[in-house]
Amino acid sequence: MIFYELYLRSFFDGNGDGIGDFSGLNKKLDYFVNLGITHIWLLPIMKSPSFHGYTITDFYNTNPLYGNLEELKETLKNGHNKGLKFVLDIPVNHVSINHPWFQKALNGDKKYENYFIWSNDKTDINEKRHWGNNINIWHKVNDKYFYGLFGPGSPELNFENKNLWNEMKKIFSFWLEIGFDGFRLDAAKHIFDYNIKEMKFEYQHEKNISFWKEMISHIKSINPNSTIISEVWDDPKIVKKYNGIFEIGFNFPFSYDLKESLKRNSTKKFINGLKNSMENYLNEEKIITNSGNFLTNHDMTRLMSELKTIEKVKFSIAMLMTLPGNPFIYYGEELGMKGKLSNVDFTEDAEEPLQWYSCGYGIGQTEWKNIKFNKPYSGVSFEEQINNETSILNFLKSVIAFRKENDWISEAKIKILYSNKNMVKLSVFNRLNEFIIYYNFKSHEIKLDNFDTSKIIKIFGNFNKKNKSLEKYSILVLKGR
Amino acid sequence: MIFYELYLRSFFDGNGDGIGDFSGLNKKLDYFVNLGITHIWLLPIMKSPSFHGYTITDFYNTNPLYGNLEELKETLKNGHNKGLKFVLDIPVNHVSINHPWFQKALNGDKKYENYFIWSNDKTDINEKRHWGNNINIWHKVNDKYFYGLFGPGSPELNFENKNLWNEMKKIFSFWLEIGFDGFRLDAAKHIFDYNIKEMKFEYQHEKNISFWKEMISHIKSINPNSTIISEVWDDPKIVKKYNGIFEIGFNFPFSYDLKESLKRNSTKKFINGLKNSMENYLNEEKIITNSGNFLTNHDMTRLMSELKTIEKVKFSIAMLMTLPGNPFIYYGEELGMKGKLSNVDFTEDAEEPLQWYSCGYGIGQTEWKNIKFNKPYSGVSFEEQINNETSILNFLKSVIAFRKENDWISEAKIKILYSNKNMVKLSVFNRLNEFIIYYNFKSHEIKLDNFDTSKIIKIFGNFNKKNKSLEKYSILVLKGR
Repeated sequence: MIFYELYLRSFFDGNGDGIGDFSGLNKKLDYFVNLGITHIWLLPIMKSPSFHGYTITDFYNTNPLYGNLEELKETLKNGHNKGLKFVLDIPVNHVSINHPWFQKALNGDKKYENYFIWSNDKTDINEKRHWGNNINIWHKVNDKYFYGLFGPGSPELNFENKNLWNEMKKIFSFWLEIGFDGFRLDAAKHIFDYNIKEMKFEYQHEKNISFWKEMISHIKSINPNSTIISEVWDDPKIVKKYNGIFEIGFNFPFSYDLKESLKRNSTKKFINGLKNSMENYLNEEKIITNSGNFLTNHDMTRLMSELKTIEKVKFSIAMLMTLPGNPFIYYGEELGMKGKLSNVDFTEDAEEPLQWYSCGYGIGQTEWKNIKFNKPYSGVSFEEQINNETSILNFLKSVIAFRKENDWISEAKIKILYSNKNMVKLSVFNRLNEFIIYYNFKSHEIKLDNFDTSKIIKIFGNFNKKNKSLEKYSILVLKGR
Repeated sequence: MIFYELYLRSFFDGNGDGIGDFSGLNKKLDYFVNLGITHIWLLPIMKSPSFHGYTITDFYNTNPLYGNLEELKETLKNGHNKGLKFVLDIPVNHVSINHPWFQKALNGDKKYENYFIWSNDKTDINEKRHWGNNINIWHKVNDKYFYGLFGPGSPELNFENKNLWNEMKKIFSFWLEIGFDGFRLDAAKHIFDYNIKEMKFEYQHEKNISFWKEMISHIKSINPNSTIISEVWDDPKIVKKYNGIFEIGFNFPFSYDLKESLKRNSTKKFINGLKNSMENYLNEEKIITNSGNFLTNHDMTRLMSELKTIEKVKFSIAMLMTLPGNPFIYYGEELGMKGKLSNVDFTEDAEEPLQWYSCGYGIGQTEWKNIKFNKPYSGVSFEEQINNETSILNFLKSVIAFRKENDWISEAKIKILYSNKNMVKLSVFNRLNEFIIYYNFKSHEIKLDNFDTSKIIKIFGNFNKKNKSLEKYSILVLKGR
């Protein structure tokens, strides 16, 4: 499974309004097939006033900017015919302040009042969020305060109310019926993050887990092959509690470690990351939640803006594809798009229109926002890269091809055979296969020990067979057994 | 006439997709009536892939994101019933690369090939634009080069082709028929800015003038009361050539001088501005093109980000409203919205959603992009300002009321009675009226000469009658005769 995280608004515009949409996606399904992508993780596409789509106003409909349900179905059907699978991002923790549920609650409708969490005498309405800058978690509207950990536009749903469990099941059923093959579940540990008996902020992991178990068993009862992705970003012992609930869990710490090691030209963080965040792959334990490995997502500075050079970007992508777990590529990274986030609340800079044309304009090009980072003629476009053999686009294609030929890597185990400041030598293996992989983190070539060059399976970057020297930011894959 | 420059996408969302639209405008017409606005200059609303709308793909239709022609008509009709007038921004100089005219031209349709300007043997395809950073003006598409001064997404129309004159007349007729009361004509001196005989960049002012004369006489033949606004930003002797063609011409140099004088707390730039860019108001000449006075527009850093303090913002707005010419307010400046442009090609930072709610979210709030400058609870919202007597919003309302009571100011003459580094004393007069106006540019109060305080018409800021001291950034208006 090779995942592509897709922000539809910035992808391909099918109707000329400058906004990416289902009909645009439908026209470009071969883009994914040609790259070797197997699964598209679609960021939220339900009705929402916000450009990012995470504050929903109707769980049972598409954002009309993206097209209607029929267009979506058509797109999914055509995608399926080409062998693609689609995973839908559903943020269930909160809704938009404009959601009719919340608006009805404000108007005194008891049923919907119980969908949300309101202050009472015990509430400390000045309570702050435990991360970020002193952000309130209680928000005034008319004469009441509602709970909204993610801000005053996003009232949290009250899952103590079992009606909402049924509502959510209906929602999952609805989107499976439309044709989705699975879900990415946002903010898994936030379903119960406020203790309304004690009126204090508190993650209630047992309650979260029983909620997710019920939801997932419902989803699997409809489609046993559904893919379920989520994330629990917390202490390892908390993460452990959730082990096995989801098939794939995003590995945030490892993502940071991978990038840090590359930024510092040092193996240290990478080794730490393997030991701390990939420990299930280093020990004998059966893997029940696979590591969702990624370098960037829609909330992060883009790879090229982090790593600065094409060589390092290629190296990082090849690392991702040579390690166990399920690799995810954020849209645009295949072109080395730039985008630096200066503020976690301002994500737009990592969400610029995917560039199809060298000049920055043309049929299907989205233009819903200005381009700040990925200017015309800067080499960051499909048109410039598709016929350039050394482009990131074509590099990614070849790495994906390698990974798909060696699909067993996804659930392989790892052994660290050797490491120093500059170089790591891993064994990646399962019962039948083994690769010995050298990673050179240094900005110069490294001379390797003598070995039988006939064992070379693949070189990412450059390897000089005569000197046995592995060039900077290169990876050498040898057959182990 | 009090103009408001409106960027619809960031105004009010009528259908919940987060994008400002006609139905949203229709719901908020009283916003303008209450402020005292008489004319709304609507930035381009025709079909276009770009968020700014200046690259059009259909001159005869609205951008579907904003609604259809019927919704637009309804909005204009309701606005007319409330006494509002609407001026449409039409960029006629170029189209989107995706316009069917250009696409047909690319496919070899002779009729449409002649709508554009193509390179020939004499063309220097490496010719650069005479402003900005080394930007090409010839752009390759398939195997041809087209002329596009404003970039590779905007092929310029070839107005040597008289068919295009007729096309443009049809377009003006169409929008008058829809209900618009006039036009803002973009890039007036660029209609003929390339000499295709000599194959070189050259403003051909005589040709531009004859084009505009024909267009305007056509517009006036349909509606003699149409308002025509444009701009010629050039040497005074070039500007003079165009004098009288348009009723209102944007006064760019004066806009910069006004802001500079306030930034430097010095009258110097203001006096220079009056003498150089408002000279028609200082001499006896009959005014045939009125000065379109503005502080900011959609291509500029916002007022609050330039001037930094509420006092200075209020001072600048009151200056605008006490001087002859036609005042224009850019949307959001009535709330003191912030927005700093770091790059002339990246205008989004001055185009953030108008903030209706203190919390940043609510029904009708547009959310088509992230907020970088105008954060929740920062005081920059309609909700926070409407009931605050000292808000910029209410200040603007009172200054507009003053201006409308003294409508004669628009075509008055000016005499500089006295000025020093900190203070300017003007006579603003016509045959029947005269105001003596003191402007204090200093960051401290200034003691004024003795005068009869019963002559005080209006104080913007503060004036201490006992000491006869005019507080910092304040304006005192006295009756002259």
